[in-house]
Amino acid sequence: MKLLKEKIQVMGRAVDSDILKVDSFLNHQIDPELMMALGEEFARRFAQEGITKIITLESSGIAPAVMAGLKLGVPVVFAKKQKPSTMGSGFFTSSVHSFTKQKNYSICLSSSFLKNTDRVLIIDDFLAYGSAAEALIDIVTQADAHLAGIGIVIEKGFQKGGALLRAKDIRVESLAIIEEMSENRILFRD
Amino acid sequence: MKLLKEKIQVMGRAVDSDILKVDSFLNHQIDPELMMALGEEFARRFAQEGITKIITLESSGIAPAVMAGLKLGVPVVFAKKQKPSTMGSGFFTSSVHSFTKQKNYSICLSSSFLKNTDRVLIIDDFLAYGSAAEALIDIVTQADAHLAGIGIVIEKGFQKGGALLRAKDIRVESLAIIEEMSENRILFRD
Repeated sequence: MKLLKEKIQVMGRAVDSDILKVDSFLNHQIDPELMMALGEEFARRFAQEGITKIITLESSGIAPAVMAGLKLGVPVVFAKKQKPSTMGSGFFTSSVHSFTKQKNYSICLSSSFLKNTDRVLIIDDFLAYGSAAEALIDIVTQADAHLAGIGIVIEKGFQKGGALLRAKDIRVESLAIIEEMSENRILFRD
Repeated sequence: MKLLKEKIQVMGRAVDSDILKVDSFLNHQIDPELMMALGEEFARRFAQEGITKIITLESSGIAPAVMAGLKLGVPVVFAKKQKPSTMGSGFFTSSVHSFTKQKNYSICLSSSFLKNTDRVLIIDDFLAYGSAAEALIDIVTQADAHLAGIGIVIEKGFQKGGALLRAKDIRVESLAIIEEMSENRILFRD
């Protein structure tokens, strides 16, 4: 997606070959117009899939997911990193390994909002090793729902998550795939 | 705001006189069309304030804040509950007391994204005792920015946060104010 790649080139910053800072428009400060464009693009790509629900993970997945939900006319559910005190007993849970923070954390999603009749689109801001995506897929599986695909804003193509998911015949649509990066240099996959 | 009050009456659930569950459209599952309507209403109410930036707190404030940002044509920054490993040294920090969880937690916001020239609108999902709002105001003060007002989706009018903020001459616009509630009964302030 041209607009997104330009934004990454202009506003993103490759700290090293591994860490990309996009906190000026996606991860901390959010550019609402860009989010709308991302949502429209996700909606366009998954328009034929009969999506009934979008799920994402707090917090940076929420803005693009809500815009996609607006365009597809479906609700969004964000998995939580802590079980809220007001959440009842029925929920799905799974575990994510954060490579950045070198630790595991649990995510949970109320079983009230994901049914076996749902056709689910997973949306997230980043795809690197795929651990967050795998945890959301695990939750879709627990709900016995249908996984229609995964929409990613920025995929780190040099890490293995995307390849692992596609090898399982899961449709992964990444709006920008970074092939390689180094300090102040970002190269996209065509 | 009529649409929101109806949604709360139909889809919300007063667990007791204190806890309102709105996780089917705001706090866990999100209704994107409702978020757009909330964003439009915030934008309408603060249209004359020359807002340059919206700040909110992860996670449930993000969706309405991004929609308001879209309508006002300004960026949104969400304060984080944990300092990310990729955040540099310059950031504002403050402390929030959660009455639900009976504990304090820190929030932080990068100083790159809030300047003394900004006219700031704070948006959050709930206003109860006002601790989260006070922490965001503290950050606006640290940045020496101008606080234009606070937009709240649901205010618990029977708790003291709204009164405390208004007593300081801060403009607080709550789209629904709950006067009183008990199990399965929700009464709004006119």
